[in-house]
Amino acid sequence: MSRLEEEVAKRALAYVLNPPSAPNDVVRYASPDQLVAAFQTATALGLENDVAAADNQALMAAVDLVVKHSIHTSHPRFLNQNFAGPDPISVVGDWLGAALNTTGATYEAAPVFTLMESATLSKLGRLAGYLEPAADQLPTLPPGLFCPGGSTATLYALQLARHRRQPDIVTTGASADRLTLFVSDAGHYAATKSAALLGLGTNAVVKVASDNNGAIEPAALREAVARSAQAGKVPFAVIATAGTTVTSAFDDINAVADICQEHGLWLHVDGCYGGSALFSPKHRHLLAGVERSDSFVWNLHKMMGMTQQCTALLVKDPTQLAACFAGQADYLFQPDKLYADYDSGDRTFQCARRIDVLKLWLSWKYHGDQGNASRVDHAVEMADYTRGCIAASGGEFAAIVPGDFTNVVFAWVPSELRPWPAEGVPGLEPATHTRLHALPPKIKARMQAEGTAMVGFQPVHGLNSFRLLYMNPAVTTADIDAVLDRIAEYGRASDQSSR
Amino acid sequence: MSRLEEEVAKRALAYVLNPPSAPNDVVRYASPDQLVAAFQTATALGLENDVAAADNQALMAAVDLVVKHSIHTSHPRFLNQNFAGPDPISVVGDWLGAALNTTGATYEAAPVFTLMESATLSKLGRLAGYLEPAADQLPTLPPGLFCPGGSTATLYALQLARHRRQPDIVTTGASADRLTLFVSDAGHYAATKSAALLGLGTNAVVKVASDNNGAIEPAALREAVARSAQAGKVPFAVIATAGTTVTSAFDDINAVADICQEHGLWLHVDGCYGGSALFSPKHRHLLAGVERSDSFVWNLHKMMGMTQQCTALLVKDPTQLAACFAGQADYLFQPDKLYADYDSGDRTFQCARRIDVLKLWLSWKYHGDQGNASRVDHAVEMADYTRGCIAASGGEFAAIVPGDFTNVVFAWVPSELRPWPAEGVPGLEPATHTRLHALPPKIKARMQAEGTAMVGFQPVHGLNSFRLLYMNPAVTTADIDAVLDRIAEYGRASDQSSR
Repeated sequence: MSRLEEEVAKRALAYVLNPPSAPNDVVRYASPDQLVAAFQTATALGLENDVAAADNQALMAAVDLVVKHSIHTSHPRFLNQNFAGPDPISVVGDWLGAALNTTGATYEAAPVFTLMESATLSKLGRLAGYLEPAADQLPTLPPGLFCPGGSTATLYALQLARHRRQPDIVTTGASADRLTLFVSDAGHYAATKSAALLGLGTNAVVKVASDNNGAIEPAALREAVARSAQAGKVPFAVIATAGTTVTSAFDDINAVADICQEHGLWLHVDGCYGGSALFSPKHRHLLAGVERSDSFVWNLHKMMGMTQQCTALLVKDPTQLAACFAGQADYLFQPDKLYADYDSGDRTFQCARRIDVLKLWLSWKYHGDQGNASRVDHAVEMADYTRGCIAASGGEFAAIVPGDFTNVVFAWVPSELRPWPAEGVPGLEPATHTRLHALPPKIKARMQAEGTAMVGFQPVHGLNSFRLLYMNPAVTTADIDAVLDRIAEYGRASDQSSR
Repeated sequence: MSRLEEEVAKRALAYVLNPPSAPNDVVRYASPDQLVAAFQTATALGLENDVAAADNQALMAAVDLVVKHSIHTSHPRFLNQNFAGPDPISVVGDWLGAALNTTGATYEAAPVFTLMESATLSKLGRLAGYLEPAADQLPTLPPGLFCPGGSTATLYALQLARHRRQPDIVTTGASADRLTLFVSDAGHYAATKSAALLGLGTNAVVKVASDNNGAIEPAALREAVARSAQAGKVPFAVIATAGTTVTSAFDDINAVADICQEHGLWLHVDGCYGGSALFSPKHRHLLAGVERSDSFVWNLHKMMGMTQQCTALLVKDPTQLAACFAGQADYLFQPDKLYADYDSGDRTFQCARRIDVLKLWLSWKYHGDQGNASRVDHAVEMADYTRGCIAASGGEFAAIVPGDFTNVVFAWVPSELRPWPAEGVPGLEPATHTRLHALPPKIKARMQAEGTAMVGFQPVHGLNSFRLLYMNPAVTTADIDAVLDRIAEYGRASDQSSR
C-alpha cells in the first residue's frame, strides 16, 4: 500500500468525482451502537487510555466506514438542510487551502489569500450596493470580513451596532442602558444567542410578528420600537431577514430601513441564506434596499455550495472594524512589516483564521457571474415545480405557506381528511391535528432507514410540516417526483399502522 | 485536460506528498503589485463587475501561482508562527471532511463525526484530568466543544464563567457589577478582545506582572485580585496561560488555582499553544494542576499540526453548556428526532459547524499516543539545541529570556557590541538599543526576499528580538544551524549598511 495520505486523498477524490447517486444512497443511517460495532472491524471509534498506532489497512477500513455512514449532502435527494450540493470546485479549492495551511490574519502569512479576500469582499460589496461599481477591485480596506459562520457574523454585527452608539464600549464596557434589538419571529436564533453572549440577554430581543409567509410586518416593527422606547429601553438595532430558515421569506428591507432611519437604528441584514439571490438578475429584487443597511451577512456555504464555512460579513463603514475589534498584539501586527496595511487580523475578533476564500474565488472564476446566477435560478425553478405539484395534487399535499423562493413547506394529507380546510392549520380539528402532526417524524425516520431521501420538518403555524429546500444544481424534477412519492407512500403506511 | 476538480486535487496532493524543501523555498515573497501582475498572465486577481467564466488552463495557471506565492508552512525553515508542519494525515482527513461537507451540529447530519467528537473530547478530557481514566469513551455529553479557534474558545469560556456567577445573564443580561478578570501581561490578547465583545470592556482585564520568562507572578495575582475587590469591583475569572505566545512560558497552574479557590474565581487555562505538552510524559508536568481548572482551551492546530482549525474547549461541567448557549430552534433540535441526545448544536454558540474532528481522529489513530508524544518531545529538543547554540556562540547571539519549552527568544549582536550586558536588555546603551532594535525587521525582510527562512520577531523587554519556535517534526539541527547562520550573515550586512 502506498502512503496512507495518498490512499485517503484518492478515496476523497473518487467521492468528489462520483458521489453516491443511486435512489437509496442518500444515507446509510446507523445508530450509535451500530456505528461502534462497525468500527470494531476496522479500528475502534473510541480513543483508549493508551492509543496504539493503527495500521494503514485498519485506517482505510475506517475511512470507508466514515464515507459509508456519512450523510451524502451532494445527493439530489438530500433536501434536509440549508446547505446541499457542495460545488466540486469549491471542495478542491478548500483542499488546496488546507494543503497550504496558513492563517488569513496577515499579508505576510497569506499574501495571495489576502488579495483574494479583498477581491471577493469588494465584489460582494458591489453586489450589495455598499460600494460603487467603479470601486477599487482590490482595496486595502475591503468592506467586510470572512467569519466562521453566520452566527458569528451576526455577533460581530451587533457588536458593531453597540459600538457605534457607544464607542467607549471597547474600553469601559457596556453602559447601563437597557438596549433592545428587533427581529421577526421567523428570524434566526443567532439573534438571541448573540444577545446572550454580548451580555444583553435574550430579553433584549424583541420578536416582531411576521406574516403568513414568514416576512416581518413593518407596522408591527414600528410599534414594537415605539413601545420599547416608551418603556425606557433603548432600541439600537434591527435585523431584517433575507431568506428565513424555514420558509425562505424575505423581509421588506426598504420598509425596515425607513424605520431604522427614523429612529437612528443600526440595520443588519441577515442574508445568510437568501443573500445569494443577489447573484440572480431575476431574483435580486428580493433584497431591494440592502444597500441602505449598515451590515449584511451572507453565507456562501449555503445556496452557493461552498464547503463549510464561507461567511462574508459586509459592513458599510469598514473603518470601524479595527476600532471595534483590534487587539494590537505587537508580536503579530507590526507597522514595520511589509504591506501591513493589508492585514485583516486586527480588524476582526479571531486571531488565526482558516483560509475560506480560495474556494470561493476559484469557484467564482470557474462559473462566472452567469454560473452563479444559474445556480440560484435553478433552485427557485425546482421550488416552483414543487409548488406546482402540490397545487395539482388534488389535496394530497397541502401548502402550509404560499412561498416564493427556494423553500416549500407543506403537509401530506390522508385521503379521508381531504379537502384541506380553507383556513389552513387553524381550521384543523384537534384530533386531525394530532394525527397529522405525528406523521413527519415517522416518514422521515423511514426515509433515513431506507436511504431514499433526507427532508426536514418542523412546526409551522403549530403543525409539523415538511420543508423541502433547493440549491443543489443536480436536483431534477424526477427527484422531486420521487421524494413526493416517498412522502405519500410512507405517509399512507404510517398513518394506517398508527390507526 | 480532465475535469478541473481532478487537476486541482492532483496538484494539491502532489504538494502534500512533496512540499517545497529546498533551502530557499520557504517563500517566494511578492508585493501586492507583483501578485496582481503575475495573475494577469492567468486570470486577474480582482473580480470585475461582470465576471466571465475562465477556462481551465487559465485557472490551473492561477492555481500554480497560488502555490508558488504562498508561504510554505511545511518547510522546516518556516519558524514564524505558532503553527507549522501540517501533519499530512490531518490534511487528507480535512479533505475527506470537506468532501463529505456536512455540519457537526446534529447526530442526524453527522452521525460518525458526532461520535468522533465524543471520542476525542473524552480522551482530551482524560488527559487533562477532567475525567477519570475509566470514563466512558463515547459519552453522550462529552466534556467540551470544538470551536473555530482559540479566541472563540476563550470567549465562550469567559461567558461560562459569567454564567456561573449569574445564571440569569442569558435572559436578563449582565448585571451592573463591574466584573474583572485577570491574566498575565504575557497572556494572549484574546482576553481583552473577548472582554470587549462580551461588553465587559478591556478595562475589566487586569494584566498581572509576569517574571523574566513570561510566567505569571502568583503573588502579584493575589495582590491584584485583592486590590480589585477593595476598589468595589467583582473579580470573576483568571486565565492561566500554558505556553505564552512569545516565550512559551507556563504559568504555575496550581498556584493560580489556589488563589481562584480562595476567592471563588473561575479558572480558565489558555493551553492554546502549550496544552499539547500533555501528550508528552516528559513535559506534561508543565501543566500540573490543569485538572483543577474550570475550562481549558487546546488548539490542536498549533503544536500538533492539525490544519486550521482544530480547537477543543474542555469544560469541567458540561451540563452548563446548554444552559449557557442553547437557542432551542425547533426546526433543528427536536426531541422526536433519532439520537438527538447526542446533538452538540444546542450546547454551543455556532449553528452549522465545519467538521474539524475527522482529521484529528485519523491522525491520532495513525500516530498513536507515542507518535503524538514524539512530536512534542522533538520540538523541545530542537529548542534545547538552539538554546545550546546561543550559549556556545561566544556572544554572537544573546538569549533574551531563559526559556525551557519550544520557543527561543534572542538577539543577534554585532561583534563590537559584545559581550552582552549582564543585566540584559536594560543594560544596553540607548544608541546600542536603537541599533539592535532596527535589525530584526531588516533581517526578516531579506529572508523573505531570498526565501531562506521565515522567523518572527517582536519587542521583548522592549527590544525587537527574534523568536524561533518549533513543532514541525521535519526540522533538523542542520536547519537550525542554517537559520542562525542566515540571521548572523544578514545581521552583519544590515548592520554595516546602516552605519
